Amino acid sequence: MSKGLTSKNDDYSQWYNEIVIKADLAEHSSVKGCMVIKPYGYSIWEKMQAVLDQKFKDTGHSNAYFPLFIPKSYFSKEAAHVEGFATECAVVTHYRLKNDGNGNIVVDETAKLEEELIVRPTSETIIWNTYKGWIESYRDLPLLINQWANVVRWEMRTRLFLRTTEFLWQEGHTAHATSQEAIEETERMLDVYADFSENWMAVPVVKGKKTANERFAGALETYCIEALMQDGKALQAGTSHFLGQNFAKAFDVKFTSKEGKLEHVWATSWGVSTRLMGALIMAHSDDAGLVLPPKLAPIQVVIVPIYKGDEDLQKISLFVDELIVKLKGIGISVKYDDRDSQRPGFKFAEYELKGVPIRLAIGGRDMENGTVELARRDTKEKSTVPQEGLDLYIANLLDEIQANIFNKALQFRNEHITEANSYEEFKSLLDDKTGFIAAHWDGTPETEKRIKDETKATIRCIPLNNKQEDGVCMVTGKPSTQRVLFARAY
Amino acid sequence: MSKGLTSKNDDYSQWYNEIVIKADLAEHSSVKGCMVIKPYGYSIWEKMQAVLDQKFKDTGHSNAYFPLFIPKSYFSKEAAHVEGFATECAVVTHYRLKNDGNGNIVVDETAKLEEELIVRPTSETIIWNTYKGWIESYRDLPLLINQWANVVRWEMRTRLFLRTTEFLWQEGHTAHATSQEAIEETERMLDVYADFSENWMAVPVVKGKKTANERFAGALETYCIEALMQDGKALQAGTSHFLGQNFAKAFDVKFTSKEGKLEHVWATSWGVSTRLMGALIMAHSDDAGLVLPPKLAPIQVVIVPIYKGDEDLQKISLFVDELIVKLKGIGISVKYDDRDSQRPGFKFAEYELKGVPIRLAIGGRDMENGTVELARRDTKEKSTVPQEGLDLYIANLLDEIQANIFNKALQFRNEHITEANSYEEFKSLLDDKTGFIAAHWDGTPETEKRIKDETKATIRCIPLNNKQEDGVCMVTGKPSTQRVLFARAY
Repeated sequence: MSKGLTSKNDDYSQWYNEIVIKADLAEHSSVKGCMVIKPYGYSIWEKMQAVLDQKFKDTGHSNAYFPLFIPKSYFSKEAAHVEGFATECAVVTHYRLKNDGNGNIVVDETAKLEEELIVRPTSETIIWNTYKGWIESYRDLPLLINQWANVVRWEMRTRLFLRTTEFLWQEGHTAHATSQEAIEETERMLDVYADFSENWMAVPVVKGKKTANERFAGALETYCIEALMQDGKALQAGTSHFLGQNFAKAFDVKFTSKEGKLEHVWATSWGVSTRLMGALIMAHSDDAGLVLPPKLAPIQVVIVPIYKGDEDLQKISLFVDELIVKLKGIGISVKYDDRDSQRPGFKFAEYELKGVPIRLAIGGRDMENGTVELARRDTKEKSTVPQEGLDLYIANLLDEIQANIFNKALQFRNEHITEANSYEEFKSLLDDKTGFIAAHWDGTPETEKRIKDETKATIRCIPLNNKQEDGVCMVTGKPSTQRVLFARAY
Repeated sequence: MSKGLTSKNDDYSQWYNEIVIKADLAEHSSVKGCMVIKPYGYSIWEKMQAVLDQKFKDTGHSNAYFPLFIPKSYFSKEAAHVEGFATECAVVTHYRLKNDGNGNIVVDETAKLEEELIVRPTSETIIWNTYKGWIESYRDLPLLINQWANVVRWEMRTRLFLRTTEFLWQEGHTAHATSQEAIEETERMLDVYADFSENWMAVPVVKGKKTANERFAGALETYCIEALMQDGKALQAGTSHFLGQNFAKAFDVKFTSKEGKLEHVWATSWGVSTRLMGALIMAHSDDAGLVLPPKLAPIQVVIVPIYKGDEDLQKISLFVDELIVKLKGIGISVKYDDRDSQRPGFKFAEYELKGVPIRLAIGGRDMENGTVELARRDTKEKSTVPQEGLDLYIANLLDEIQANIFNKALQFRNEHITEANSYEEFKSLLDDKTGFIAAHWDGTPETEKRIKDETKATIRCIPLNNKQEDGVCMVTGKPSTQRVLFARAY
């Protein structure tokens, strides 16, 4: 295994790409813009899925599955949605191939669809078209459904996990009797995402609302969680949308209220995707490779024997086998790498690259002394630890590592929120890659657009419970009552 | 909730459709041939997935994810695969829609793909194209990978779960250094499927090999498990393919052996799909609705209070709350349905229709007597059971129900394997819907095809460890050494 990652300070983008490839997380496929998620990367995604899925179920949601294809006409039904999604999509026009007689496979032109089908870029339209048949009365509400699925948005410039033509995600789609209930649901799911991001991914986030310009196509309000990467760019890690009655009206979904009135249903949708993998990688990793928070690490502890002969190895393995039983018994995932085809140094570098939180090395002398050598991936500290009580020591250490990774990211994030009081200062901070910039803005889409055009910075969010203070817009000088968070973003 | 299912003896096909719809398992979507899997149906599929996924991991496999799209040219690379799969496929030709200015969404003809993309009908080609980059040496083998995914095969005549244009499945794709290892893998995964079918789904299966005519396109050998439905038709419940070196040669995947020789890799693939839902429904259900084996039932026990006033209900609920804690503590899933909007009789019918294995009803007199009324879904027996020790009673009963459902299906299957010694007898047995027919056949594809054309019966499999006996082909009178299993099939 070749190591030698590009340093993140030299070329952050290259450093990221190399970690994704060299840590065996994902690779570009031969299909433009689509990725292959490799087993190690997928096993991290599976852990994310399991945690999120349980949280969705704990908050009353059920999973279901809706079609991959959406009839083209559905996109015309919700006006704002049209502009947002009926653009860069994969379009299915035919349903048969044939052999042309010379061994070439060609499209059978006689098998043309009457109406083209779009590979779902998001499923609001097909789902609300289905909900029409499911909702009649207030007794059918709330309808709390989630779907795990693949979606396709045709992207010209792609980056593994961060922006790919096909990606995996979950999309929640709920229906409610009142506006208030729908807003509560939107906020509840934002909290679920923030909890997941902070307490599992160890990535601190700012919860906030998007400006009108940045809202989901068809939403009345888009809530988001915004994370900060180590290069000072922001990453939107999850969104939760209050859709009002827009989709209910577009697809004619009404219910009879307790009072016997026929009313349109209120909607939300919310989602996170394999993009979270990008956030996880970029938030914590270093020049030696991936750094994984223990709660999402497929392998939490790796054990490498250092031995001279078979007798040495046998003695070590006997101890390790017992340790593995103990560790698994308390829910810790562990791998024993006793391959004889690779030297310990090679293995050390490999697990460092793959972000395994704790590495144990055990040699003949350790066996004599009743110790092991323990290396932490997060701090790179090595120590000699007694074999006695090692399982509980490791259990505590994993918690400590989880907390340490979060606190490090939190400190970095907090140190990278800067106030700007003039447009010049704002631009200079951006050039210095200082992270989030809190600045006054006059509240108009025009000013927001001008800032974006001139600086590539966008308003990431208006934080929830934002401090109110009098000020003037840094661009127009018009009055403003609060600072909003700007950043360049992924 | 309206009940009144069509009787399975009157119209089996209609009975099946009604159960799928009325038990809230799935429904047809507005996209031709695609289904919506509803929350209750999906929760059964999730239980299937969880069990299978664990079995795959226990046998050393990892999950990964490969692209939804396959370049058209890949289908030309493996000759036999071409004929089998490059036919009824969804073809993506464009990647953009646009607004025509009149509010209509139309395909942007300037955004035409140079090479069309096919929505995967199965992933051998894209995966083996990827494996080329993953395999260099014997150290990279075996490569044991599974994918959970959606696939699309354009079907003209569809039936919910049994045959849909889009369906969900898992596909295992493994690479090995030797033919022997690949064959062992093929057989191992067949055993996994058989174990799952019999011990979780409670559906007995015959393990066997397909004839050349019925093999997977590109396979040297297709193993299968065949189940018998209550109408005497067979259903292929899983397949495992030994692909030889066909895909390795088509995609140039070679490895350096221990001896330093460059050789093509040996391959297998194996899969089961949401079709299993159809098998599960058809194997056990009755005229009152779905019958679910406890191990796959999302709700194993439902509790319905029978009460006159709030005081009654409070007393009952106090007892039920404690019972639920106990049941959940021993891993039993339970639902307490204390809705006041429906009468007990309505609820009884609903849970019967949904196949919940055990129903408890508890009224005021039960509370006085320290009893509950317990109804088994499989036998429809009702009994009065003491509240004391109820949790363990239920745990044992669930095991008994699981065994009973399997044994009933096994007895049915065994009673529906009949030997035919002449073609006339064969045809008459088919007309009587007697299930599997064991008959001698001369081993030629021509005779097999003639039988299929004339009777719609196919050779379901040549059972593994088949009894060898001298005989003559029922059609041609040519010599035969064994009986093979025929049936009409789903």
